[in-house]
Amino acid sequence: MLKNPQTKYQPYPSVDMPERQWPSQRITQAPVWLSTDLRDGNQALFEPMNRERKLRLFQELVKLGFKEIEVGFPSASQTDYDMVRQLIDGALIPADVTPMVITQLREDLIRRTVSSLSGARRAIVHFYNAVAPAFREIVFGMQVSEIIAMVEQHIYLLRELTDLQPETEWVLQYSPETFCMAELDVSLAVCNAAIRAWNAGPDRPMIINLPTTVEVSTANVFADQIEWMNKRLERREHIVLSVHPHNDRGTGVACAEQALLAGAQRVEGCLFGNGERSGNVDLVTVALNLYTQGVAPGLDFSDIAAVARIAEECTALPIHPRHPYVGDLVFTAFSGSHQDAIAKGFAAQKPGALWRVPYLPIDPKDLGRTYDSIVRVNSQSGKGGISYLLQRDHGVLMPRRMQVEFSAIVQKLADSSETELASEALWQLFEHTYLHATAGQWRYVRHQLSEHAQGAHILIEVTDDNGRQSSLQGSGNGPMDAAAAAISAALAQPLRIDHYEERSLGAGAGASALAIVEAALPGAAGTRFGAGMHANLVTASVQAVVMAANRLMQEGAAQFSSSEQSRPACAA
Amino acid sequence: MLKNPQTKYQPYPSVDMPERQWPSQRITQAPVWLSTDLRDGNQALFEPMNRERKLRLFQELVKLGFKEIEVGFPSASQTDYDMVRQLIDGALIPADVTPMVITQLREDLIRRTVSSLSGARRAIVHFYNAVAPAFREIVFGMQVSEIIAMVEQHIYLLRELTDLQPETEWVLQYSPETFCMAELDVSLAVCNAAIRAWNAGPDRPMIINLPTTVEVSTANVFADQIEWMNKRLERREHIVLSVHPHNDRGTGVACAEQALLAGAQRVEGCLFGNGERSGNVDLVTVALNLYTQGVAPGLDFSDIAAVARIAEECTALPIHPRHPYVGDLVFTAFSGSHQDAIAKGFAAQKPGALWRVPYLPIDPKDLGRTYDSIVRVNSQSGKGGISYLLQRDHGVLMPRRMQVEFSAIVQKLADSSETELASEALWQLFEHTYLHATAGQWRYVRHQLSEHAQGAHILIEVTDDNGRQSSLQGSGNGPMDAAAAAISAALAQPLRIDHYEERSLGAGAGASALAIVEAALPGAAGTRFGAGMHANLVTASVQAVVMAANRLMQEGAAQFSSSEQSRPACAA
Repeated sequence: MLKNPQTKYQPYPSVDMPERQWPSQRITQAPVWLSTDLRDGNQALFEPMNRERKLRLFQELVKLGFKEIEVGFPSASQTDYDMVRQLIDGALIPADVTPMVITQLREDLIRRTVSSLSGARRAIVHFYNAVAPAFREIVFGMQVSEIIAMVEQHIYLLRELTDLQPETEWVLQYSPETFCMAELDVSLAVCNAAIRAWNAGPDRPMIINLPTTVEVSTANVFADQIEWMNKRLERREHIVLSVHPHNDRGTGVACAEQALLAGAQRVEGCLFGNGERSGNVDLVTVALNLYTQGVAPGLDFSDIAAVARIAEECTALPIHPRHPYVGDLVFTAFSGSHQDAIAKGFAAQKPGALWRVPYLPIDPKDLGRTYDSIVRVNSQSGKGGISYLLQRDHGVLMPRRMQVEFSAIVQKLADSSETELASEALWQLFEHTYLHATAGQWRYVRHQLSEHAQGAHILIEVTDDNGRQSSLQGSGNGPMDAAAAAISAALAQPLRIDHYEERSLGAGAGASALAIVEAALPGAAGTRFGAGMHANLVTASVQAVVMAANRLMQEGAAQFSSSEQSRPACAA
Repeated sequence: MLKNPQTKYQPYPSVDMPERQWPSQRITQAPVWLSTDLRDGNQALFEPMNRERKLRLFQELVKLGFKEIEVGFPSASQTDYDMVRQLIDGALIPADVTPMVITQLREDLIRRTVSSLSGARRAIVHFYNAVAPAFREIVFGMQVSEIIAMVEQHIYLLRELTDLQPETEWVLQYSPETFCMAELDVSLAVCNAAIRAWNAGPDRPMIINLPTTVEVSTANVFADQIEWMNKRLERREHIVLSVHPHNDRGTGVACAEQALLAGAQRVEGCLFGNGERSGNVDLVTVALNLYTQGVAPGLDFSDIAAVARIAEECTALPIHPRHPYVGDLVFTAFSGSHQDAIAKGFAAQKPGALWRVPYLPIDPKDLGRTYDSIVRVNSQSGKGGISYLLQRDHGVLMPRRMQVEFSAIVQKLADSSETELASEALWQLFEHTYLHATAGQWRYVRHQLSEHAQGAHILIEVTDDNGRQSSLQGSGNGPMDAAAAAISAALAQPLRIDHYEERSLGAGAGASALAIVEAALPGAAGTRFGAGMHANLVTASVQAVVMAANRLMQEGAAQFSSSEQSRPACAA
């Protein structure tokens, strides 16, 4: 049994605030968003991003609508320094986007930081130091007065250095790190000293950024802390009040939202909650929470699957299947009563009317996704479901999103045939859906692949219903990339490969491989899977790409909506 | 760009509550916990649990300390009915644990529900129906008065039926489903009607359970709703006020905590947040959040890895590496300044004193875990880290927890040698650590395996430092299980296999396979990995089990604590 925690842990103090106002407020406009994916997110990765990957993510963040992006720690990392220089020298920063860089309070680091930003149109320099008692005492051995003097001294240095570069609009961001663990009067004294040292004013913009460096209290206490500071910061009208929530207690989103109620104007975080330990706050969730309350977030997640795949690639971390808005399972309904209510909701939903479909907090189409009701074969008799039967009897291991997609297809057939499907019928449906071209689809005939130092070139021969043959050609990094390029050229629109996997069925050199590809086309809601089976790995992959493209073209944005079930209903 | 949401979404109304008190409260004691893993969690799985798995999870929940467990929907599922009967007839429910079963408001279902519980010492019958406008209008087409009449009528039926079985202590739980989306006065009217119909009182226990069926507002609005109800429910002293938060807006934990501030006494949820869509609230996080505030949660997560592996097995869903308290990465520190502060914190932490280590919200040892500072080889030069080099040069793909473990070992060596490690040195360290027995460890010599219908029997021959040979013998479901049993017998303590994976290195029939095993021993903090490499898959696995056992015995609960780094510091 757990030791009695009273002997080891104590609650952080709450805020005595009889006049608190934040619980009566509403969020009526979006905050300024600061993505720290390239800095706080990146520093928590096993494999920090290289410059190429960082640039790619920067451009994605710009595309999503971020106007402030923390790009790194140039005084501590040559990779980051080079990247900042490339952004500025290559004119890669749009006119309405401001880069931010972080630095500790050390003269040499500050000099290098300012030099890294030379020539920028506008830039935020992010100063931070820890102010909470555990850090003052254990880590630094400093008094509050010493901390204030250190902050002032380095801000004076920054003023000096930036005065020499008047072509740049300089913004100072100051973060009293470990804010949520510090005495409020200490944080206030340090912040006000920083505000005066920078001489914040109409022409000297400044951000005060208050982090839950490590979450230590319930989310209402953080809101109290923000309201307390909001009422007391000097030159308040010239300060942007920002928050930087982490997620150690699983309440990062609530801390961000309630801080906005309490007067915060800006939120720092990462896509899908990447960051040290339990992560930074997930900006996608905070933004879409606003969206479903009728507030335009100013960020574009209308193709959320594409954003998810880029984030997964850059961080090498998965997104959980139950992650709000983006997880593979969040627009699924397994229970009959939910499916029934959703079907009635879709039927009652009039075009242009307010969204009112039960169990779907957002229209999946707004995110480029689809709703899927999941039928489970024999689920209640405990004999195992669709994916279990396909795996056991045919060695097919479907990725989770493919399970979601295939369930809907099974359900359609089960509804029309009014019987439960046996394992063999499931396999035929799988073949029919994913492996074999049907009327109106391309049939794969053969391909030629040439690989060379620069990549791969492919020629794919396909026939149509009338036996007319076409040759599709494309080049890319590898066979998959080249096949996608060949199809994109034929369709005159870019086919995007979101996921690819391949495994052998059975053992030995003659065994077939099953390739599974998930692909998307611009404008279509959601992705589609295709599969290929062949002893040659490349042939199986090319077949899979062709089938995914076939299905995207034919099914388009068709949505599998649920219909009434005779299966048992479930609740809440 | 996202469509303007004003045309499609509107905020849910907030609560006008000038006298609200919850933001000034503190949580000073643990709520009653209700696990709905076997019901709400189970109904959201691709492969619902069979009876055997349900029983296993039930027993695990009891072991963790749950006193109320929702075991299923017996009137809708024969699996659930049989399980409830087995629990009661087999006397598998401890005297201080109460099972709960859910039912819709239909006479036949209620009759079957009561019959499923026949002979129970104490039982909670869970009634639910939707009360929010979208459901009243779209799904059921009923007026509020009709809903109240339906609730009353079915509670009268339940009274009749339960009066005939006085040997059981009957508790009614009523859930106005979709509570958070309903008008408060409607929810109150229905709940008060239910309270009167059941005639709740000192001898007629009753639970009113208020769900965020789908999260639709910021977490403070839910707290307002709970406080509003708490002040107005009839016979309040005889009612246990319960909440059932979901997580569609990523604020399930905050809703639970703030509801407790507002007067809720009981929380329903699942381990690690399983459940429909974005999940039910994660009870592990809510409980451990209490724990670190000096409040004993009454649930035991002192071996959280074991709980995590059971949950992953029962749900076939992963736990995210950044999940609070349990994720593989939450007790890691990647940045030099964090590692430095943590090292100083450990050094300053006196036995018996209040926990005060920076960046670690809880002592990892309290959860049976260890803190790991992660060294990244060449991280700043962008050449890739430890796992990248091992994969690129040796085809070794380490599971994430093994990466965490191995990083600490690399760091120790890097600290002592004061140089960066090259790829070859990393591989030697990997071999030395995971593949080759060293002084004081068992050396694998050979094994004999016999497989038969009932399972497998294994005989493993090992030698010690002096060349003395021992034979370890064990039986199990398969080779891995049998090998663990053989070692457990030799050690006289149970070796638990938490994770196992094996892949071929290179191609062809003669290629070696690399097996990786993660194992645990009772009482040791954390798990240890072992590996084996051989052309025979089984040999590689047995070697890996032996090496994991060697490392557990030798390293015991040794903790890899951090030391100062010369690498760049990072912030917040």
